[in-house]
Amino acid sequence: MIADHEKGYFTEETSAEVVSARNNSCDNVRLRNCVNILVKHIHAAVKEMEPTQDEWLKAIMFLTETGHTCNDWRQEFILLSDTMGVSMLVDAINNRKPTGASESTVLGPFHVADAPELPMGSNICLDGKGEPMMVRGRILDTSGKPISGAKIDVWQANDEGFYDVQQKGIQPDFNLRGVFRTGEDGSYCFRGVKPKFYPIPDDGPVGKLLGALGRHPYRPAHFHYILQAEGFEMLITHIFDPDDPYINSDAVFGVKKSLMAKFQLVDAPEQFAGSSFDEPFYLVEHDFVLVKE
Amino acid sequence: MIADHEKGYFTEETSAEVVSARNNSCDNVRLRNCVNILVKHIHAAVKEMEPTQDEWLKAIMFLTETGHTCNDWRQEFILLSDTMGVSMLVDAINNRKPTGASESTVLGPFHVADAPELPMGSNICLDGKGEPMMVRGRILDTSGKPISGAKIDVWQANDEGFYDVQQKGIQPDFNLRGVFRTGEDGSYCFRGVKPKFYPIPDDGPVGKLLGALGRHPYRPAHFHYILQAEGFEMLITHIFDPDDPYINSDAVFGVKKSLMAKFQLVDAPEQFAGSSFDEPFYLVEHDFVLVKE
Repeated sequence: MIADHEKGYFTEETSAEVVSARNNSCDNVRLRNCVNILVKHIHAAVKEMEPTQDEWLKAIMFLTETGHTCNDWRQEFILLSDTMGVSMLVDAINNRKPTGASESTVLGPFHVADAPELPMGSNICLDGKGEPMMVRGRILDTSGKPISGAKIDVWQANDEGFYDVQQKGIQPDFNLRGVFRTGEDGSYCFRGVKPKFYPIPDDGPVGKLLGALGRHPYRPAHFHYILQAEGFEMLITHIFDPDDPYINSDAVFGVKKSLMAKFQLVDAPEQFAGSSFDEPFYLVEHDFVLVKE
Repeated sequence: MIADHEKGYFTEETSAEVVSARNNSCDNVRLRNCVNILVKHIHAAVKEMEPTQDEWLKAIMFLTETGHTCNDWRQEFILLSDTMGVSMLVDAINNRKPTGASESTVLGPFHVADAPELPMGSNICLDGKGEPMMVRGRILDTSGKPISGAKIDVWQANDEGFYDVQQKGIQPDFNLRGVFRTGEDGSYCFRGVKPKFYPIPDDGPVGKLLGALGRHPYRPAHFHYILQAEGFEMLITHIFDPDDPYINSDAVFGVKKSLMAKFQLVDAPEQFAGSSFDEPFYLVEHDFVLVKE
């Protein structure tokens, strides 16, 4: 006797199996597996929620509005993925690191491919705004040996929480961006400004959802790194300010313990006199450990 | 000691709990529960799929394209829900019926609210096209007693698989639609045309997905009912032709065993002579059983 779900009949109990069986003639095995996994888990979610027809329609309208909010400049589905922790989960799955290696976090939407390569120690703040910050440390392998020739791509928002690309014509092009390359000792050093928390775009359906969930839209102060060196896995990560008011509630779940670095205020005149600073500044020291390919 | 996820740290293991904990201050309990259920199951799906960053981005772009395909006339997310069996699952959850009661299926997008009320036995086919069909039966309660004054709203596609609203100016307005009301004996009867299978809109991202999954876009031949009677639960359902080539593979999973009715060809002259038909016709006999509120 042929089971009902093999003939295509659908019941509350067999729903996911019936749908999956329909995909049996798909010759793209990966696509079929992914769709069937999603069907299984989404049917399980529906069975657990038991939505009314009205609630189901609200979900349909939320997805529709989210789609309509996407354009060349705005990706509301990525924002939804970010705020529901899905982006960070995908990042975690794709960046499992051995103990001692630096951890990754999300790339974010504000990286620019062609930032200028600068001499080590340069100031990436082109408009002089904000509280000065010096960042330094070393790029090491997992045995603690310095990595020479490592490429360090850094970018950050300004002291008001905006990236240059969000304020074209207000901030100079390539403000608070730079690419550096380590020498023999693996050390790096650059100057920037103390970053500030900022909101993700919250005027769309995802922002409304966060509001309804009693959540704020803020990301704690951070700056971004892409680290690349020949023979090593690329590392995309942030450094966070542990004293930020939102450090324990990043709207996109990007914070990891190991990605916090003390933003130490150097304000005693004898400390900054004779340095390249003639005023108090924040010092951030952080080493990175890359994993061999 | 405070657990990491209470401080907002995120790991592959704790991901869903961390996200749910962030929704704790939501005062809409139903919304919070639904979002947390979805987060739990979607994170479980992501962990099972282990998507690459590229695959994740493909999913984002699929949802975006699906959103961009939605407009006032086209609801691609409902189509996605339909073709993944989610709509039928929500229907099943909201229409659990006692044994012996008629089963429900999806409403579909082609119902029109103000179809004309017609005398019992009327022909709803206004343009004379297609093979004639007579449909008749009774509306009963679960004890087998006829229901008097039941309202029967029927609609169907024509013999080419199109509803009137899809062919404005080609089909007459309200072609193949009608509302009937039962008398004392609970019986109903109307004339229409033998329906044909037809495709769901398959020129968008959902149609492309079905293609990639090796699935066809067809719904087997059927006609639609909304049955209403005072003191009884409303029933939204179809009747299907069991001989349709797609009867075991409805693109939206709407078919149930109990919703099939024999489309019996009455072609012996002595059978249709003296009837309201002067040519062979299809006879469909089906009783419905409604549940008391």
